[in-house]
Amino acid sequence: MVATLAMDVDENAALVSGYELKLNSYDLSVDIELNDAVQRIRFEHPEIKSVIITSGKERVFCAGANIRMLGQSTHPFKVNFCKFTNETRNAIEDATHNSGQFYLTAIGGACAGGGYELALATDYIIMADDGSTSVSMPEVPLLAVLPGTGGLTRLVDKRCVRRDRADFFCTTEEGLKGKRAVDWNLVDETVPRTQLMEIAARRALELGARSARTARHGISFGTLSRTIEERRITYSHLTVDIDRDNATASLTIDGPRIAPPSRLDDGFGADFWPLAIARELEDAILHLRFNEESIRTWIFRSRGDAPLVESYDAFLAANADDCLVREVILYLKRTLKRLDVSSRSIFALVEPGSCFCGTILELALGADRAYMLRGSRAGNESPPPSIGLTEMNFGRLPMCNGLTRLESRFLGQRGQVAELRGRIGSPIDSILAEQLGLVSFTPDEIDWDDEIRIALEERAAFSSDALTGMEASLRFGGPETIESKIFARLSAWQNWIFQRPNAVGEKGALKLYGTGVRPEFDPRRV
Amino acid sequence: MVATLAMDVDENAALVSGYELKLNSYDLSVDIELNDAVQRIRFEHPEIKSVIITSGKERVFCAGANIRMLGQSTHPFKVNFCKFTNETRNAIEDATHNSGQFYLTAIGGACAGGGYELALATDYIIMADDGSTSVSMPEVPLLAVLPGTGGLTRLVDKRCVRRDRADFFCTTEEGLKGKRAVDWNLVDETVPRTQLMEIAARRALELGARSARTARHGISFGTLSRTIEERRITYSHLTVDIDRDNATASLTIDGPRIAPPSRLDDGFGADFWPLAIARELEDAILHLRFNEESIRTWIFRSRGDAPLVESYDAFLAANADDCLVREVILYLKRTLKRLDVSSRSIFALVEPGSCFCGTILELALGADRAYMLRGSRAGNESPPPSIGLTEMNFGRLPMCNGLTRLESRFLGQRGQVAELRGRIGSPIDSILAEQLGLVSFTPDEIDWDDEIRIALEERAAFSSDALTGMEASLRFGGPETIESKIFARLSAWQNWIFQRPNAVGEKGALKLYGTGVRPEFDPRRV
Repeated sequence: MVATLAMDVDENAALVSGYELKLNSYDLSVDIELNDAVQRIRFEHPEIKSVIITSGKERVFCAGANIRMLGQSTHPFKVNFCKFTNETRNAIEDATHNSGQFYLTAIGGACAGGGYELALATDYIIMADDGSTSVSMPEVPLLAVLPGTGGLTRLVDKRCVRRDRADFFCTTEEGLKGKRAVDWNLVDETVPRTQLMEIAARRALELGARSARTARHGISFGTLSRTIEERRITYSHLTVDIDRDNATASLTIDGPRIAPPSRLDDGFGADFWPLAIARELEDAILHLRFNEESIRTWIFRSRGDAPLVESYDAFLAANADDCLVREVILYLKRTLKRLDVSSRSIFALVEPGSCFCGTILELALGADRAYMLRGSRAGNESPPPSIGLTEMNFGRLPMCNGLTRLESRFLGQRGQVAELRGRIGSPIDSILAEQLGLVSFTPDEIDWDDEIRIALEERAAFSSDALTGMEASLRFGGPETIESKIFARLSAWQNWIFQRPNAVGEKGALKLYGTGVRPEFDPRRV
Repeated sequence: MVATLAMDVDENAALVSGYELKLNSYDLSVDIELNDAVQRIRFEHPEIKSVIITSGKERVFCAGANIRMLGQSTHPFKVNFCKFTNETRNAIEDATHNSGQFYLTAIGGACAGGGYELALATDYIIMADDGSTSVSMPEVPLLAVLPGTGGLTRLVDKRCVRRDRADFFCTTEEGLKGKRAVDWNLVDETVPRTQLMEIAARRALELGARSARTARHGISFGTLSRTIEERRITYSHLTVDIDRDNATASLTIDGPRIAPPSRLDDGFGADFWPLAIARELEDAILHLRFNEESIRTWIFRSRGDAPLVESYDAFLAANADDCLVREVILYLKRTLKRLDVSSRSIFALVEPGSCFCGTILELALGADRAYMLRGSRAGNESPPPSIGLTEMNFGRLPMCNGLTRLESRFLGQRGQVAELRGRIGSPIDSILAEQLGLVSFTPDEIDWDDEIRIALEERAAFSSDALTGMEASLRFGGPETIESKIFARLSAWQNWIFQRPNAVGEKGALKLYGTGVRPEFDPRRV
C-alpha cells in the first residue's frame, strides 16, 4: 500500500496535536506536521510500505513568506528551526532504512531550498521534465545562509554529488533541471509531467515490494495527555518541574506501574509504557527547546520499580523483530538522539527509589554528568540507589554517531563494553558504578546537596554559547555519520552564519529578502 | 639524539624569517616560531629522533597579556589564529607519526589553555607532581570561548578522556593535577619536580629508539627569497598577482627548469623544485590568509614543462623511503592541506602552456571549480592544454579527511579512481578530462573569457560567510578524522562563539578578561 503526503506550505495548516508549541507557524509548522505524519504512518498504518512526498503547489517548501518570517525571527528560533527540520528528515531516513517504509519524492514545479532538502531525505527522487520543474539550493546566492537542514552534507555524502558540481549547483540561484539534474545525480529520474504521479506510484509499489513489513494491527495515537502550568508540566509518566530562579528543569520519569504483556499476541496500545515514555519525553524536549530558552540545565531523575523497567526492556529485546515493537524501539532511539543534540546541559541524579535501568539508564549515560548518591538517606526508607544494564544498552539505541552511549563513553576501550555486557541483570551500587565508569561522581549524603547545588550554580554562571559549543564537541567522540556531520558541523556553520551581519545585519541578505533592497556585504573573508 | 624546544611566551621572540607577516605578536608569534622550529628540526636535523617541548616559565602558553590582546583582536584574526595554531599542532603529530621524530611534553608549572592544547598534540605528556603543577582548559569558565585549537576534540578523540570527565575538566578553571590527572588520562606520567627533565630525557631516548629515522645529510633552509609589491608577490617558482578590483589573487606556479637528480645519492638542497614549491606556496597561503582578507578568490594557474613535473613526481615516488624525500612529500601534503582549510574560494584555470600534472594537478583537483580550455587559442603557438596523473595523485598527498583528492572527488566510486590509475603517464585533453570528471567545465576560446569573468564576478557578489560555510561543508565528504573534526566542527563552533555577545560583546568575558569587571551573559540557550 502506498500513501501520498501532499504537503501544502501556503496554507500553514493547523499544528497537529501533541506539538502545540508557542511558535510562529513559518515553515516549521509544515515540518512538525510532516514529522507527526511520518510518526503516525509508522504506527497507525503499518500496512503502508511506501510513501510519496509531493507538493500541492508549484513552489515546494520555499514560500517567500516563510523566508521573510525566518529572516525576522530570533537567532534561537533560526537555530532550533534547522535542528528540528533535520530531525524530521532523519526520521524519514530512519523509516526508509529501518522500518521498511520507503520514502520517495515526486517533484512537479520549482523545488527549492528546504523543499529540495526534504527530497534529499527520501531515497528516490522523480522529477517532471517540463522546462519549468527544477531543483535548487538558492540559500547562498539569495539569502547569504546555508542549506543548513542537512542539504550540503546530504548532497556530497549521501548522493555523492561531485564537489565541484555541488559548488556550482549551490551557487546557481535557478538550480538545475532535466537531463543535467539526472547526470549530476541530483535526482534519480525525469519523466513527462503528465506521467509524474503515475510513474511515482509505480516506483513506490516496486520499491515497497522489497519491504518485509507485515501488519498485525495499528496503534492509534490519540491526543497526548499533558497539563502545562507555570512551573510544572505533567504527563502520564513524566513530570517536568521548572525552577526559573536556578534556570533548571527536573524531568522525572516514572517507571511502569504494570508488567508488560506476557505474550506479544496480547497486543499493546499507545499506553504501552515504553511508547508512552517516548512520546512524552519527545514532547517535553521539543517544548523545553522552543518555549523555555532560559532554562539552561535539564536534570533527569527517575522513580519506580527497577525490575519492572527491566521486564519491559526484556519484552522489547525479545520481540524486536515484530513490526510495532521495532517501531517503539526506533521511537525511543530517535527521542534519545534529540536529547544528544539539544543545546542544554544535561545532568542525571541517581537517588534512592530511582529506576535507572536499561533504556532509562541511557538518560544517565547520555548526560553531561551523572551524580549517584553513595549510601542511603537518613530517615528515608528506600535502600541505597542502584543502576542496572539491560540488552537495550548494547546496540538498539545508538547515538547519531552510530555508537551506543556506552561505546561513546568508553571510546577505544572495547574490552570495557564487553565486560559490562556480562553484568546485565545484576544491580550495580554506587561504588561499583563509579569503578566501572558508569557515573561521574558519587557524593555521600553529607556532600550531596552542596555538591549538586554548586555544580548547577557554576553551570548557570557560564556563557551559554561556550557551553553549547563545548557540549557539542564532547558528546560525540569517535566516528562520524551523515547525521552527526549535519548536527555537529553544518549546524555549527549555520549558527555562525546566522549571526553574521552579511545575513542578519540591517543590510544583510536574509534580513532584506523580499524587500527589493539589495543587501550589502562585508567583502572580507574570515 | 634529543632536541629540547624551550618555548618562552613572555618574550614574544622575534618572528622567524619566511613568516614576516603583518601581525601583532600575540601567541601567534610563538606558534609561528614553533612551526618553523618543527619544520627546521625535520629538515636541517634529520638525526634528531625525539623532541621535548617544555616551557621557560611557570605559566605555559596562556600568558594573560596574550589573551587580552586576543580579546581586542578582529574576528578574522581570532579565527585565523585558531586555524594556524592547529596546523602547527598537526605538523607535530605528522612528525611523530610519519617522520620518526617523536614529540613529548614536560610540564613543570601551570599548563593552561593553549599550552595544554600544545601538549595534547605531542604523544607523551610528563608532569611534575609538586602541588603547583597542573593542566587545565579554563576557556569556558574564564573566557566564554572554547579550547578551539583542537583541545576538545583531542581530549575525547585522541586521549579518549571519558566525556563526563572531559565536561568536568573543561568547566573547572583550576584544572587537575597529580594522580587524578593520570587516572583520567590527561597526562601519561607524573614525576617528582626535581627529576622532571631527567626523566623526560630518558623517555625521549626510549621513544626515539623506536624510530628507524636515519640521517644522510640535512638541508639548510636559509631565508626564503620573496619580493612583496602592492600588486605582486614574487618567489622563485611562484608569482602571486593581486587584482584588488576583482578581489582575486592569481597564483601561478612555474614548473621546474631542470631535471631532478638522476640518483638519490647526488643529493639535493632547499632549491630542489618540489621543496621550493612547498615552502613558497605555504608562505603565500599564510600571507594571503592574514594580510589580504579582502582577496576572496584564489586562482591557480601553472606554466611549464609537464614531462619535467612528471619526472620530479617519479623521483619522489621512487625514493619515498628516503628520510629527506619523505620530508619533502610530507611538506607538500601539509601545504596542500592548508589550502583545503583556507576560507577562500579556490578556482583553477587550465590553459595552454600549463603543467597541471601529478602534484600540481592536486591544486586543480582540490579547487572548488576547475576550468579547462577546450582547444587552443588563436594566435597562440601553445597546443591545447592537457593534464596528467602521476603516482602522487594516488595516496601520498591525502586531505585532512584521510582521503586523496581523487577519492574525495569520486566518493563512493572506487572503480573510477582505479580506472584513473591506469591513465598515469598519458596526457588527458579537455574533452577526456571532462568525461573523466577531472575538471568542472571546458569552455572553448569563444566562451572562455566571459564564462570565467562571470563566475568570478558572481563569486565576489556572494556573502563571504555563506561561502566559507558552504565550501567547508562541500570540500570534505566522506569519513572524518581528528583533523577534519577539528577544522570542520570545532572551528565552526569557535567561529560562532567568537561572534557571540557573551564572548565579544561590551560585557563579554573575552572582551573583559583582565579588566577586573565581571562579564554579563545572556542566559538563553540557543
